[in-house]
Amino acid sequence: MNTYQRIVLAARPQGEVTPHHFRLETVPVPDLAEGQLLIRNHYLSLDPYMRGRMNDARSYAAPQALGETMIGGTVGEVVASRHPSFAAGDFVAAMGGWAEMAVSDGTGLRRLDPAAVPLSAYLGVVGMPGMTAWYGLNRILETQAGQTVCVSAASGAVGSAVGQLAKLRGCRVVGIAGGPEKCGYVVRELGFDACVDYRAGNLRADLKAATPDGIDGIFENVGGEVFDAALARTNPFARVALCGMIAGYDGADIPMRNVRLLLANRITLRGFIVTEHLDDWPAGLAELGALVAAGQLKYRETVAQGLASAPDAFIGLLKGRNVGKQLVKLV
Amino acid sequence: MNTYQRIVLAARPQGEVTPHHFRLETVPVPDLAEGQLLIRNHYLSLDPYMRGRMNDARSYAAPQALGETMIGGTVGEVVASRHPSFAAGDFVAAMGGWAEMAVSDGTGLRRLDPAAVPLSAYLGVVGMPGMTAWYGLNRILETQAGQTVCVSAASGAVGSAVGQLAKLRGCRVVGIAGGPEKCGYVVRELGFDACVDYRAGNLRADLKAATPDGIDGIFENVGGEVFDAALARTNPFARVALCGMIAGYDGADIPMRNVRLLLANRITLRGFIVTEHLDDWPAGLAELGALVAAGQLKYRETVAQGLASAPDAFIGLLKGRNVGKQLVKLV
Repeated sequence: MNTYQRIVLAARPQGEVTPHHFRLETVPVPDLAEGQLLIRNHYLSLDPYMRGRMNDARSYAAPQALGETMIGGTVGEVVASRHPSFAAGDFVAAMGGWAEMAVSDGTGLRRLDPAAVPLSAYLGVVGMPGMTAWYGLNRILETQAGQTVCVSAASGAVGSAVGQLAKLRGCRVVGIAGGPEKCGYVVRELGFDACVDYRAGNLRADLKAATPDGIDGIFENVGGEVFDAALARTNPFARVALCGMIAGYDGADIPMRNVRLLLANRITLRGFIVTEHLDDWPAGLAELGALVAAGQLKYRETVAQGLASAPDAFIGLLKGRNVGKQLVKLV
Repeated sequence: MNTYQRIVLAARPQGEVTPHHFRLETVPVPDLAEGQLLIRNHYLSLDPYMRGRMNDARSYAAPQALGETMIGGTVGEVVASRHPSFAAGDFVAAMGGWAEMAVSDGTGLRRLDPAAVPLSAYLGVVGMPGMTAWYGLNRILETQAGQTVCVSAASGAVGSAVGQLAKLRGCRVVGIAGGPEKCGYVVRELGFDACVDYRAGNLRADLKAATPDGIDGIFENVGGEVFDAALARTNPFARVALCGMIAGYDGADIPMRNVRLLLANRITLRGFIVTEHLDDWPAGLAELGALVAAGQLKYRETVAQGLASAPDAFIGLLKGRNVGKQLVKLV
């Protein structure tokens, strides 16, 4: 195998993402320099943040370059190494991108134990989405037993972990998700106390009924109307972990109307990016891995087959078609 | 003098406040019970928060009752006492309301030294507005020397103190105020580095020019467009002390459009009410009093004469007609 496939950003979307914004290419496997290693990617993670990188706008990260491999987290196996710390047969998590192979100099690689939890879980509940949930809950919401936590995108990779972790801490947990199937999964499989279907058309009334004691912590993955509805139910001194604004990724304004409540309820809100808090990862990942191994932290995956399916799977993710972590199986 | 005058809330405004929402009454001075004292109010403080209390809406405080004396902070002199800790001739700060006299059981009274700073200053820069500035700056913005702080309603009682305290801490300070007169005062008298006139019609461009290194801390007294414009200039990890939302007090929605930046810039925002943080008052007021006495903290007052002028003065405050602390002189 002297070539591999990759997907590059072909054009920047002005609004909705379409397959034409991507291009599948076949490229040669490069020779390894001293200190480098070659990884065969087994799974690619698809995540909402990628939509933001496709824009050429001011954000927390540099935009994805045109014509370059789309960025993305991967797990895979080292197949060749000229690096002193890695050998063929090692399993690693990497930012390997939308590609079948990746060359690395070892920077930022995380060594994985495929016997502890399934390999794909290291891209989900024992990876960045899981740590996002862990960090927001422990470092921003600082949730106490008996409090009510509201989680949007509740059936997603982050939201499902947030709710289960909050339940383990003794909270009442109310999810918000789109459609009866996702809501049923959240309550019956994940053990949330309630889940409001925002597509049912009665978001505010339904959320009010589901939060008789108000809301003490909002883990916000969506923004817009969903966030406003949750703010309307906040108690004094509520806290908000602002994690995602998927509703605005296509460039539309998502005005927030209950701004007054930020003051009236003396709310503390913090936006965060979990990769800026790497100090917490070792302890957090150890806790998450142990909970998964013990069966106390469940997750679901939507797995697309083959690199060429990544653009459609990504577009589906942006439209909320997946349940749980969206992955692409590459091997 | 067996009677005194007071102003009560006659009706709740649906939108704009008018004089008809208030009623001037003459009432008898009550006999003092054991443990009570009688205060002759010298100055009444008028503040934007009163507008919120006039509504019958969910807020951090109970609404002002109809037919009762309008609430308000006062400074005055004890003229009779059956309380063991206070004697005639003592000067005190109290929540004496829109009235010439007030009866108190001593709860929440603060003893004042009229020789240290002028009596009226205890309602302003050495009182609640000054402590609001002090708390937001020290406990929320946690401003560092060299950072840029943006303050809206910059010529007001809170804003002018925020800016001067931030300058003493080595910050670049940019105010936002309405009209060239207020902006000139803020820069020339108070020593702000710049002041943007939001009425000039180029708020965003002017604020950009005044903040070449972006904004690290926003002390927000206004909300709405002004807040959005400041958010658009934030640097990563900026902090927001949310103190006032005067733009929305008349019941209009004030959507916030740059919500995305709360996440993109990992902003920490906190709404606060300074009266919930009384632990900080003794140290803060001591610092503020010393700075006033040393001439390092300037303030300006707009003083209306006589209780009957309070409604018009309050309406003027809501429309931004005052410069500095709005007071009513009652004696």
